[in-house]
Amino acid sequence: MALGEFELIDRYFREAGCRRGDVVLGVGDDGAILRPPEGFDLIAVSDTLVEGVHFPAGAPARSVGHRALAVNLSDIAAMGGAPAWSLLALTLPRADETWLKEFAKGFSLLALEHEVSLVGGDTTRGPLMIGVQVLGFVPHGVALRRAGGRPGDLICVSGTPGDAAAGLALLAPDAREGVGDPISRAALRARFEYPTPRLELGRQLRDIASACIDVSDGLAGDIGKLAASSGCAAVIDLECVPRSEALATLVREGVFEERDALRFMLAGGDDYELAFTVPPENREALAELEARGDVFVIGTFVEAKASEPLVAIRTERQELQQYLDALPSSFDHFGG
Amino acid sequence: MALGEFELIDRYFREAGCRRGDVVLGVGDDGAILRPPEGFDLIAVSDTLVEGVHFPAGAPARSVGHRALAVNLSDIAAMGGAPAWSLLALTLPRADETWLKEFAKGFSLLALEHEVSLVGGDTTRGPLMIGVQVLGFVPHGVALRRAGGRPGDLICVSGTPGDAAAGLALLAPDAREGVGDPISRAALRARFEYPTPRLELGRQLRDIASACIDVSDGLAGDIGKLAASSGCAAVIDLECVPRSEALATLVREGVFEERDALRFMLAGGDDYELAFTVPPENREALAELEARGDVFVIGTFVEAKASEPLVAIRTERQELQQYLDALPSSFDHFGG
Repeated sequence: MALGEFELIDRYFREAGCRRGDVVLGVGDDGAILRPPEGFDLIAVSDTLVEGVHFPAGAPARSVGHRALAVNLSDIAAMGGAPAWSLLALTLPRADETWLKEFAKGFSLLALEHEVSLVGGDTTRGPLMIGVQVLGFVPHGVALRRAGGRPGDLICVSGTPGDAAAGLALLAPDAREGVGDPISRAALRARFEYPTPRLELGRQLRDIASACIDVSDGLAGDIGKLAASSGCAAVIDLECVPRSEALATLVREGVFEERDALRFMLAGGDDYELAFTVPPENREALAELEARGDVFVIGTFVEAKASEPLVAIRTERQELQQYLDALPSSFDHFGG
Repeated sequence: MALGEFELIDRYFREAGCRRGDVVLGVGDDGAILRPPEGFDLIAVSDTLVEGVHFPAGAPARSVGHRALAVNLSDIAAMGGAPAWSLLALTLPRADETWLKEFAKGFSLLALEHEVSLVGGDTTRGPLMIGVQVLGFVPHGVALRRAGGRPGDLICVSGTPGDAAAGLALLAPDAREGVGDPISRAALRARFEYPTPRLELGRQLRDIASACIDVSDGLAGDIGKLAASSGCAAVIDLECVPRSEALATLVREGVFEERDALRFMLAGGDDYELAFTVPPENREALAELEARGDVFVIGTFVEAKASEPLVAIRTERQELQQYLDALPSSFDHFGG
């Protein structure tokens, strides 16, 4: 089976794939011919997943396919865009039909849900690695960026950060299989294996948020990037950071310790939720999102000062301070 | 040095990079914001280079950077497009500053020449692998495709196919270093290491050619793809396939045998020339290109018949037939 040609993977995508009317010519030629709508800016994102780095070796192929697209759709969401077209560069150690079918299923079901056409790509023999690019649209001039937040803006997050990192921890060989509530365990694993790109929320935020990023590397670190791009510092109120019922359950049951939960919530990656800032004047529009129950205000942007940390996490529970101090500082560092 | 962030490579690209006015937001956010021109179709292409597969281990970083972009620009050329934006997914075993600088130089010089902005990408730790996507434009509805050729159309090729394969052979450890004309050796090596994407020719062909492909996998095989997509068969006249002076010299000097030369010309890859078909009514416009000396008519499309090969190579020199029969058949097979 020749791996040099994309026909291999295209075969598995053809059945389940999404057919958009703006694809003039898809897979099979030297390139795709696409018709962008007039009056829109194009958003281009690119993300690569490597086995053993971004997902555990031997992860279910369906999850790998889902995540490869989801992490890119999440970037589109963070810019307030609507996705349209994808390209896939797949490096495979061998042509395993079962693996490919499952991979294509994971990718295609998510693509169908968000009306994304696969328009090109290539396959190469090598260690398992999935490079995906997604192209999307946003009306001229309204795309969300990391820069744009100002002191006084409210820092918000969607969903319950840390669930994906907890799920990943539950996939590790030493994860005390069978201990704790099985439904909570399954829910957290699903948050790692099948993250939900927040595309609808991203589009709603175009009129509300001053800056936006997707939470891929950990909540505090990603808010640090948002703050740095906006020329601000961030103060996060630990008591406002939401914790999922599933994670809370497993902490109560002793599967995880409190410090694990804090690490997952603040420094765990792979949630693909949105972190964003909202100017005070948009408080009312924000309240509508909050009322739906999946958007939370967790802090405030303040003036950046050289003597102060980029991201400070405050808590009234002094006994937690040692856990905060011990967190890996992919972001600058923490302050009390 | 953190490899997860694109700042690493962006640093090396920033100085030499091309700045286009239609890039609203480039590297550094969740995605790029781009402004496509109205009245144009978007062309999207994607190609990955893997060390040890697409270039020899230890190849000069500058050549790797050049080729990673060139192979994608060649796909844009084959569709008659003008390139605009690129994305780069770089997997590196380690962050080697010297290597990265040279890689960036090779990529950036070619990008500058063709006014291509690098607008995004990512870096990952792993075996050396370079995934590139290029987005370009073509006026609505005039993009060249592989399908579109008809029986009676003339088969043409640009440049002198086989030079890159000969150059690659000269890079092998057993390539009899120091034997034969050094200028011819250097010229052929350069055709492998620094191929020229035929963007200007591709645009000129929009009004002339009925079908087009870039020669990346070997002339006969790629013409086979053109024929299959067009529902035709191809008859190539071996005496019309051009041979470069450099390759001819090394054959005369005994560095290569005649059968090597034929294999390079017909089945060697990596030339990134254009193979295309021209309807008889465009013979006059084609003559203008031929007069410039770098476009050659090498055969004719005929009706496809189940009993006939997809690509037949005819020669009056019967002694060459054994070499033709021995060629690797990435394309269907040869006929006398």
